[in-house]
Amino acid sequence: MACTPPFDIVFFGGTGDLALRKLVPALYQAHKAGLLDADGRIFALGREPQSLEGYLRTLEERVRPGLGADFDAGSWAGFCGRIRFRQLDADQQADYAELLDALGGDPGRITVCYLATAPRLFITICENLARIGMNHPNVRLVLEKPLGHDLASSNAINAAVGACFAENQIYRIDHYLGKESVQNLLAIRFGNTLFEPLWRREWIDHIQITIAEELGVEERGDFYDQTGALRDMLQSHLLQLLCMVAMEPPSSLAEEAVRNEKLKVLKSLKPFSDEDVPAKTVRGQYRGGAIRGAPVPGYRDEPHVAPDSNTETFVALQAEVVNWRWAGVPFFLRTGKRMQERVAEIVIQFRPVPHALFHTPFSQQSANKLVIRLQPTESIRLHFLAKEPGDAMNLQSAYLNLDFHTLFKARRADAYERLLLDVIHGRLALFMRRDEQAQAWIWVEPILACWDRHGIAPKPYIAGSWGPAASSGLLSRAGVVWHEEN
Amino acid sequence: MACTPPFDIVFFGGTGDLALRKLVPALYQAHKAGLLDADGRIFALGREPQSLEGYLRTLEERVRPGLGADFDAGSWAGFCGRIRFRQLDADQQADYAELLDALGGDPGRITVCYLATAPRLFITICENLARIGMNHPNVRLVLEKPLGHDLASSNAINAAVGACFAENQIYRIDHYLGKESVQNLLAIRFGNTLFEPLWRREWIDHIQITIAEELGVEERGDFYDQTGALRDMLQSHLLQLLCMVAMEPPSSLAEEAVRNEKLKVLKSLKPFSDEDVPAKTVRGQYRGGAIRGAPVPGYRDEPHVAPDSNTETFVALQAEVVNWRWAGVPFFLRTGKRMQERVAEIVIQFRPVPHALFHTPFSQQSANKLVIRLQPTESIRLHFLAKEPGDAMNLQSAYLNLDFHTLFKARRADAYERLLLDVIHGRLALFMRRDEQAQAWIWVEPILACWDRHGIAPKPYIAGSWGPAASSGLLSRAGVVWHEEN
Repeated sequence: MACTPPFDIVFFGGTGDLALRKLVPALYQAHKAGLLDADGRIFALGREPQSLEGYLRTLEERVRPGLGADFDAGSWAGFCGRIRFRQLDADQQADYAELLDALGGDPGRITVCYLATAPRLFITICENLARIGMNHPNVRLVLEKPLGHDLASSNAINAAVGACFAENQIYRIDHYLGKESVQNLLAIRFGNTLFEPLWRREWIDHIQITIAEELGVEERGDFYDQTGALRDMLQSHLLQLLCMVAMEPPSSLAEEAVRNEKLKVLKSLKPFSDEDVPAKTVRGQYRGGAIRGAPVPGYRDEPHVAPDSNTETFVALQAEVVNWRWAGVPFFLRTGKRMQERVAEIVIQFRPVPHALFHTPFSQQSANKLVIRLQPTESIRLHFLAKEPGDAMNLQSAYLNLDFHTLFKARRADAYERLLLDVIHGRLALFMRRDEQAQAWIWVEPILACWDRHGIAPKPYIAGSWGPAASSGLLSRAGVVWHEEN
Repeated sequence: MACTPPFDIVFFGGTGDLALRKLVPALYQAHKAGLLDADGRIFALGREPQSLEGYLRTLEERVRPGLGADFDAGSWAGFCGRIRFRQLDADQQADYAELLDALGGDPGRITVCYLATAPRLFITICENLARIGMNHPNVRLVLEKPLGHDLASSNAINAAVGACFAENQIYRIDHYLGKESVQNLLAIRFGNTLFEPLWRREWIDHIQITIAEELGVEERGDFYDQTGALRDMLQSHLLQLLCMVAMEPPSSLAEEAVRNEKLKVLKSLKPFSDEDVPAKTVRGQYRGGAIRGAPVPGYRDEPHVAPDSNTETFVALQAEVVNWRWAGVPFFLRTGKRMQERVAEIVIQFRPVPHALFHTPFSQQSANKLVIRLQPTESIRLHFLAKEPGDAMNLQSAYLNLDFHTLFKARRADAYERLLLDVIHGRLALFMRRDEQAQAWIWVEPILACWDRHGIAPKPYIAGSWGPAASSGLLSRAGVVWHEEN
């Protein structure tokens, strides 16, 4: 892996949760692995003034313990030498001028501005950066979701940001796309002869995409109650994963080729009619229950959540990609909070054999599947049937395990590390283009509108379960069940 | 696994090498595993008179040490209780009458007559058995290859045996077909959706079948010098394995359905013309060399081999199955003695991807293959390309390992154990039917005739190598190489 060119990376929200939990540790790992140019600086910005020493103490307390065995005193010292801290109030024009001074204002230098702040500050920050010339072609802007809560607000943000920065300077990040297992999905599909011929309606029965969290809304009740699972997770992460599964082979891995193919998938999603929504979507909201044996409150009892809230904390739906490859193949998507287990996975369920020669127990007739796990650990498993030893011809399910740890001894980068390196290197392929994002909203909005119009309230489910029973019902109408790892 | 019905098994050649090395140990394992009915007797026949005690001493000395950790004193004692010894001269009619007395002559009892003798005795033994009525429908006859050395002699044996026994009483054994990995080849192809759609000319580049031995001709110089690798190995084992790979899905696993499909493959083998033979076959004969560092003599210096012998100890050839599924796909077969390594394997080489999106080193463009190993250990490996960890999109070859030991904890039976149980249970599917055998000779004979007619002598190769250079040349003309496990 090549080292980056010289760079500056500026974290707006440098004292916030995302910076401390994900971004700073990711850069430390890249630094330790020798992937960052020696002339690479990290500017953490915070609203409250504090000294560099004070910020480094924060890192010492909040970042270092999480590094575990990856902590190395020498690397850590070198890494801390890259760090600067600056106070910045997003609304104060003078603060930007001082930031520019500190950076040096070299338009030839790669400068990454990572907006790890509340979304309402995005436009202000962009306008202020543009005002002082920090939108030159070597500036790259990283935006975290949510970018709006519907098509109109998303368009408004993208238009305002787009007035300050060219589209190819804007990196809309989705950390799921940085995971090795998702990258490997592309490698498996397009680097091998073995899967692509089967990757179509003739051989695939259906596809499942699950992102289940054990966490509730935590400190974000305020934001979440205005948002819900469909906007927060499905519109973004799940649809992006769906694109990676369903897209046609691009002509190259160049960013525009890949993004065009993803957009084509989003445009091929069959729009939901008013009749479809009740039959093909499931809204849920968690009630009190238990996670790993510990009692947890219901959603409506969470801080900053309306006691009569009708926001969904779970959504499952059946989508269809209406093109030559996928027509008729159900894509089942689900995501929820306070689920039984933290797991993110994609399941490609192949059709059963057309004619059964072997004695196959009924439970194993759907044995052929490819399961791509993104969380809690990454793996790709090919499930199939093999003959069990002995003189009878009995089949038993088995799986071939593409275990990255075993196969490749090399260190595996976290998704954020990989994506931050992509930004510094100027690789856009794994980031969402504006039109992709808009298209996702166009598809999602009629669901929201229909729920609203017909007063479809979320069904309750017990915290620590797999969501409302209707979620199983959605699949059982198609004769299938949600995959459970055994 | 079900226990057998009551049975008698009679080993003609019960003091011989095959009985002591393979058959008796296989039955011991089945006994120990509780797969043999308590009322199951084993009659070992030998030309020289000896007491049961004497024979049991032989087993103690020659069988027991090979059982290793599988030896169990209690099981062994019980197993020895099943054993009878009888002197029998194959030419002496009176000896058969005594054998019949010993067996009890119950026509309702399953009686397996295993001819582990020199082939020249087959007809005599069958005629004598028929004469005393030991060809009743519950008698099953097991024949070891070679059954003749060409079509005419094979037909003669089969006709004579067929005059005494019905075809469905005759079990022509090929122990390669009893291997779990070969059984699993069927399970993988016909028990799963994943492979069968790719199992054809559109997706498969070529197929390799190798049976390489480290041994030389040992004590069999006499026989071998009249036979050679094409007759001894290719006509039987390699063509049988080719049938398992190439056959169409049978309508069931019933014996006639499977055997009909195998026959269809043999009949679809493109006949060799006089022009084909020099271009598409390679004959070899080993010279002195070294096996695992120890010097070994050349073939012509082996005992009972003519010093100017032109018998091949190695053969490689390119076959084609001319039907809708396989037209144009080369099947490369090779077998030899005194090779570098003892290995038997089938390699299904898939075509490269039609359009390369990833940076793939040239050496890995043929990465997609399924490798079925029969010897020295059984395994099935699916080789493919995966992304190596890191921010670049580089592919690396990896394989998914269907390791029977890991996947299935159950004890694995040796091929002979499985096939002996099949005979006792009356399952014919894994045994060759007369017409299959004849068809194999029909295909092989023109090669022998052409070698003869055009004086094509075997090319020398060093003992401990992979055969003559022409063997690599055969493949390189098709742009490929013999698979080597890495």
